[in-house]
Amino acid sequence: MDPFTRPHMEAARALIGAPGSRQAIPTPAAVLEVEAFERNLALMAARARAAGLALRPHAKSHKCGWIARRQIAAGAIGICCAKLAEAEALAAAGIGAIHVTSPIVGEAAARRAAALAGSLEDFRIVIDHPDGAAELGQAAASPMQVLIDVDVGTGRTGVSGVEQALEVARTVAAQPNLNLIGVQGYGGHWQHLEGANARASAVAGGMARLSAVVSALRQAGAEIRVVTGGGTGTFEADAAQGVLNEVQPGSYAFMDREYREALKDDPDGDFEQALTIAATVISVNHPRWVTVDAGLKAFSTDGPLPAAVTAKFAGCGYRFFGDEHGLLMRPEGRDVARGERVEFAPGHIDPTMDRYDLLWLVRGEVLEDVVPIEARGASQ
Amino acid sequence: MDPFTRPHMEAARALIGAPGSRQAIPTPAAVLEVEAFERNLALMAARARAAGLALRPHAKSHKCGWIARRQIAAGAIGICCAKLAEAEALAAAGIGAIHVTSPIVGEAAARRAAALAGSLEDFRIVIDHPDGAAELGQAAASPMQVLIDVDVGTGRTGVSGVEQALEVARTVAAQPNLNLIGVQGYGGHWQHLEGANARASAVAGGMARLSAVVSALRQAGAEIRVVTGGGTGTFEADAAQGVLNEVQPGSYAFMDREYREALKDDPDGDFEQALTIAATVISVNHPRWVTVDAGLKAFSTDGPLPAAVTAKFAGCGYRFFGDEHGLLMRPEGRDVARGERVEFAPGHIDPTMDRYDLLWLVRGEVLEDVVPIEARGASQ
Repeated sequence: MDPFTRPHMEAARALIGAPGSRQAIPTPAAVLEVEAFERNLALMAARARAAGLALRPHAKSHKCGWIARRQIAAGAIGICCAKLAEAEALAAAGIGAIHVTSPIVGEAAARRAAALAGSLEDFRIVIDHPDGAAELGQAAASPMQVLIDVDVGTGRTGVSGVEQALEVARTVAAQPNLNLIGVQGYGGHWQHLEGANARASAVAGGMARLSAVVSALRQAGAEIRVVTGGGTGTFEADAAQGVLNEVQPGSYAFMDREYREALKDDPDGDFEQALTIAATVISVNHPRWVTVDAGLKAFSTDGPLPAAVTAKFAGCGYRFFGDEHGLLMRPEGRDVARGERVEFAPGHIDPTMDRYDLLWLVRGEVLEDVVPIEARGASQ
Repeated sequence: MDPFTRPHMEAARALIGAPGSRQAIPTPAAVLEVEAFERNLALMAARARAAGLALRPHAKSHKCGWIARRQIAAGAIGICCAKLAEAEALAAAGIGAIHVTSPIVGEAAARRAAALAGSLEDFRIVIDHPDGAAELGQAAASPMQVLIDVDVGTGRTGVSGVEQALEVARTVAAQPNLNLIGVQGYGGHWQHLEGANARASAVAGGMARLSAVVSALRQAGAEIRVVTGGGTGTFEADAAQGVLNEVQPGSYAFMDREYREALKDDPDGDFEQALTIAATVISVNHPRWVTVDAGLKAFSTDGPLPAAVTAKFAGCGYRFFGDEHGLLMRPEGRDVARGERVEFAPGHIDPTMDRYDLLWLVRGEVLEDVVPIEARGASQ
């Protein structure tokens, strides 16, 4: 099940460096324009630096060791992971600074977190319940950094407010190997609100809640060094509010249709579409549309529909055409041949990347390398 | 990236055979109730036998060698695959009879098909264009079985009618190593029409088109032995029409919410929910709902929402809560603890299975085995 050993991979890897090799990548495929990606990394790193915010990009968007290494090389202080298995896969890929952004449950998971804490230079994990703190404390054989996850209005995870935060902090304090180093407040539902003002006002309300928890914990004697949260869509608002000192954006490195529609001309949306899904036309018998080899299994289906970015097909509507195929309207007045390539901007980047085992790196029309997406499917 | 080597797998595999071990499978996970699955296989095999139809289940629903072997052991004559990479992965898993249901394009793909034809006992592939026949013929170093794919009204792939079919057949005849053995007509869009009558009338129209092509090809001297198509939702109609002599259902082995809603009490819907997605409650701080560890990356998102099937949570609404989490309404008057397990019937089985590298086999509350889903992500 190593994707590099699939029968078509030998020929595909032989393409690396050849002129025009981008057009020969086996499809459907996740294709990264390295130059646009690097500009996205540099832009976000510069903004974080200018705002005095530590940058810890969220790896749930990409699940890929190569990407994480490039983000760290471009100024990030480490990465975030949503799940333990994602953290384990990226730790195995050589990433030494990982913050786990979701609470975990149970002894088996606590032992896995303790193993990561014991082997990584900088491992942290959030908790939102006294029992979670107790489980981690019992599993930890060496010091482990923890943060209290605070619900800033999403209602997904996190303590509900000051009282629960203080209770969790007391449980942490009772565990000799747990060090409370900070708090996290992430407003997932804010990220795609349309318009910078709408996002800024949502952020203001949530950050007030987070700020109250920080004050209460400090008053109770906790040393809160890290206040982390935020995403691609709220960077400007997060910077303006000044509550966070670390941000966790993920999608900025790639972009998608969902962010493009919500952020429009906001500064938050000032990133390039660096990631596309490449597909091939496999049937041309219908007079009004053609069929491509990328369908429900090739894209996220929760956000906007994919949009063709290949010039010839710009504006030609796509729709899902079953598990393995897509319908693409024919461009007016132009013929389409079997085998033509089309690249698409995906609707929602995170679940799209999680479909692929491999990331194909291109510079212009040349395939530069293909790298594993080590944490794909690692949601456990 | 071998999922069996992920850090949590050693402990997980040690659970096999232990009482109650179903509740300790690392989540999110695809869980197969072996007994219900076996009843589904037996029921479809009996129906096909009674109708005089060869059964060739579609592996795009499961992508798993273990499942394919059980289907063949239960009376199937082989399997269908949607894509070459899927066929290659299942061939590597030991399946010797594979029919590829989508046309392929280009020399590289034709060489891969030729390699499969040369190594498998029974390999077949469909074509819908004269150039496709020429490409395959040039790549084939030994005899290869081909079928003409006929568009029965979906407009996705297939020749549009008799004229195109005859043209493709002539191109096949000109290729010494290609043997035309049949035709395929699959109405993907019919499968989920609500009500057996609606499906039967759609099938009747499409099968008339297929039948016309079969007659014309036979009249032109082709030996059409195989007339293949059909799915879980149209089995009864396909059997009644009598045009097909081979059927390709996939979802019947597992079932999903989409089929359940469309088929209701039809005989076509008379299969059990054998596949569930297991999740764990990871946060309980909100008064109205809890948060589980299965979200946009754990389920298909194109069909109906997942539905909790664990008795305690029956009727409790689920909604997606970001990439890695789901919201589950609390059951009235009952407390919910961190760590509780919930199993869900997925919305659409095919894209759901394609999220998972592993299939966990359970019998009652006991984990019986865990097997690889070898062709997961193999859409190329």
